[in-house]
Amino acid sequence: MSILVVGSVAFDTIATPSGRRDDILGGAATYFALAASYFTDVRVVAVVGEDFTAQHEEVLKKRGVDTRGIDRAQGKTFRWGGQYLDNLNEAKTDFTELNVFEKFQPRIPHDFLDTPFLFLANIHPTLQAAVRLEMHGVRLTGGDTMNYWIQGTPKELAETLKLVNLLLINDTETKMLGGGKNLPRAARKVLTMGPQAVVVKHGEYGATIFFREGAFGIGAHPFRAPALPIEEVKDPTGAGDSFAGGFMGYIASQGEINREVLKRALFYGGVLGSFAVEQFGTERLQSLTRAEIDARFQLFRELTHLE
Amino acid sequence: MSILVVGSVAFDTIATPSGRRDDILGGAATYFALAASYFTDVRVVAVVGEDFTAQHEEVLKKRGVDTRGIDRAQGKTFRWGGQYLDNLNEAKTDFTELNVFEKFQPRIPHDFLDTPFLFLANIHPTLQAAVRLEMHGVRLTGGDTMNYWIQGTPKELAETLKLVNLLLINDTETKMLGGGKNLPRAARKVLTMGPQAVVVKHGEYGATIFFREGAFGIGAHPFRAPALPIEEVKDPTGAGDSFAGGFMGYIASQGEINREVLKRALFYGGVLGSFAVEQFGTERLQSLTRAEIDARFQLFRELTHLE
Repeated sequence: MSILVVGSVAFDTIATPSGRRDDILGGAATYFALAASYFTDVRVVAVVGEDFTAQHEEVLKKRGVDTRGIDRAQGKTFRWGGQYLDNLNEAKTDFTELNVFEKFQPRIPHDFLDTPFLFLANIHPTLQAAVRLEMHGVRLTGGDTMNYWIQGTPKELAETLKLVNLLLINDTETKMLGGGKNLPRAARKVLTMGPQAVVVKHGEYGATIFFREGAFGIGAHPFRAPALPIEEVKDPTGAGDSFAGGFMGYIASQGEINREVLKRALFYGGVLGSFAVEQFGTERLQSLTRAEIDARFQLFRELTHLE
Repeated sequence: MSILVVGSVAFDTIATPSGRRDDILGGAATYFALAASYFTDVRVVAVVGEDFTAQHEEVLKKRGVDTRGIDRAQGKTFRWGGQYLDNLNEAKTDFTELNVFEKFQPRIPHDFLDTPFLFLANIHPTLQAAVRLEMHGVRLTGGDTMNYWIQGTPKELAETLKLVNLLLINDTETKMLGGGKNLPRAARKVLTMGPQAVVVKHGEYGATIFFREGAFGIGAHPFRAPALPIEEVKDPTGAGDSFAGGFMGYIASQGEINREVLKRALFYGGVLGSFAVEQFGTERLQSLTRAEIDARFQLFRELTHLE
């Protein structure tokens, strides 16, 4: 079944120990869409400026992504610059130019309104909620957020969380949102705020999915997927969004939601995240094959599998 | 087959958010011995002072640990005081009184010299090497070390590493020893220094074992065991030594060393570490049953197991 992602499309300028790229195609919605496109039909709702060319759009179209929801506005596309020269685990932002993204009001094409799976990438929680409420027939909503909204717009975020089935955030965000220093306890608190499950991304250590008791008709036991130890990370940008794309894309491809599907989805999330960081920007996500993805899925599985 | 551990026996004064204990039995050799005792026969070589009573010794004897290698010296037993009030992941040391441990010269009882499995807990690398060289017929040597020796006595440590088959250290120590900021690359460097495998402990995220190409007749692919998300950590003291005891104890119990044994050992390490932190000091490790251990092993397995 198809999935709709709402979020940013951007041009990124990135410096890492492996090199530098200027104004390359990025943004959460782009990474998510490319990653999810290996599993199911993907639709994007985003805004870009006049500098977004047919060539840029072709990157998504080549992967079969439906780009009719990408709105052209007057002005320049969202630009972000950052570096990972000292620490590959955390970006140091050099500049942020919101440009057309500052006044982003998601416009959902009529044909997209009944998309059964939805992912609300990291944008203002009020916009996330508005999108969710405008859609009809959504079976499952995934969402992302960040410290900026957790601290800056807690009331708006609280309303949005009531509309999200699966929240994907990292360790720090979980503790910030749930309170305290103990991760599983913070995750349990987050599960009282709306989501039926929270996926906590641990970076190089993988991810854990915590379930609300009885969610999706399954037990409350958490499930954890490891991450493959990677010797060469060229560019960590988009790893989390690629994880989300692999995770949600796999779920959408299965249609039904049960414990085994969510477990495998967690592994596929890690797989797509691990590919994303092998090259700059979306390069690696553009050139994958499903066979490569499934081969790496097996590597992830063998990493922790006991006979 | 039996295993010999050489290391510290101590009295610890510990404060955590769950409470405080004064002068409770601790030390790396104690945690290791108790954890390993659920799998195989354990022998301890250590030094204690006149304040170490028959009651303290009974804690080990009750678990069948052979205490004939515990040397009584004039003076007081090694004492350590620390707290985890702000951060359960890292101890803040309040005081260290080496006492009789300062002049520790491991004396190995004659009957212990042919013990087939050996664990060199965290003591001066020169003492570790001396113990290993005095033993005959050792089939497998495990070892621990810490930043203090990595930075303070690098040459002595380098000699010891040539005698160790399995090194158990944490992420920070691996990067310090191997150099650089990338964990798998640092681990690969450590594998050129002597050990055939290095077990990197990730705390709440589990542990990864990296193999030297061809080590133990198996491939070079790493293996990772997750850690169970724990909501209540009462006292993290001894978690790493309990991990080592579960890991090495299981290997010794199997006799033969192959990939599957090492994988299961990594899970058992995590299991014993997870029990250790549930109560203060060695309390929980004193009262376990093998059935409880195997039930938790299944929980660990299910945590990442795909059908």
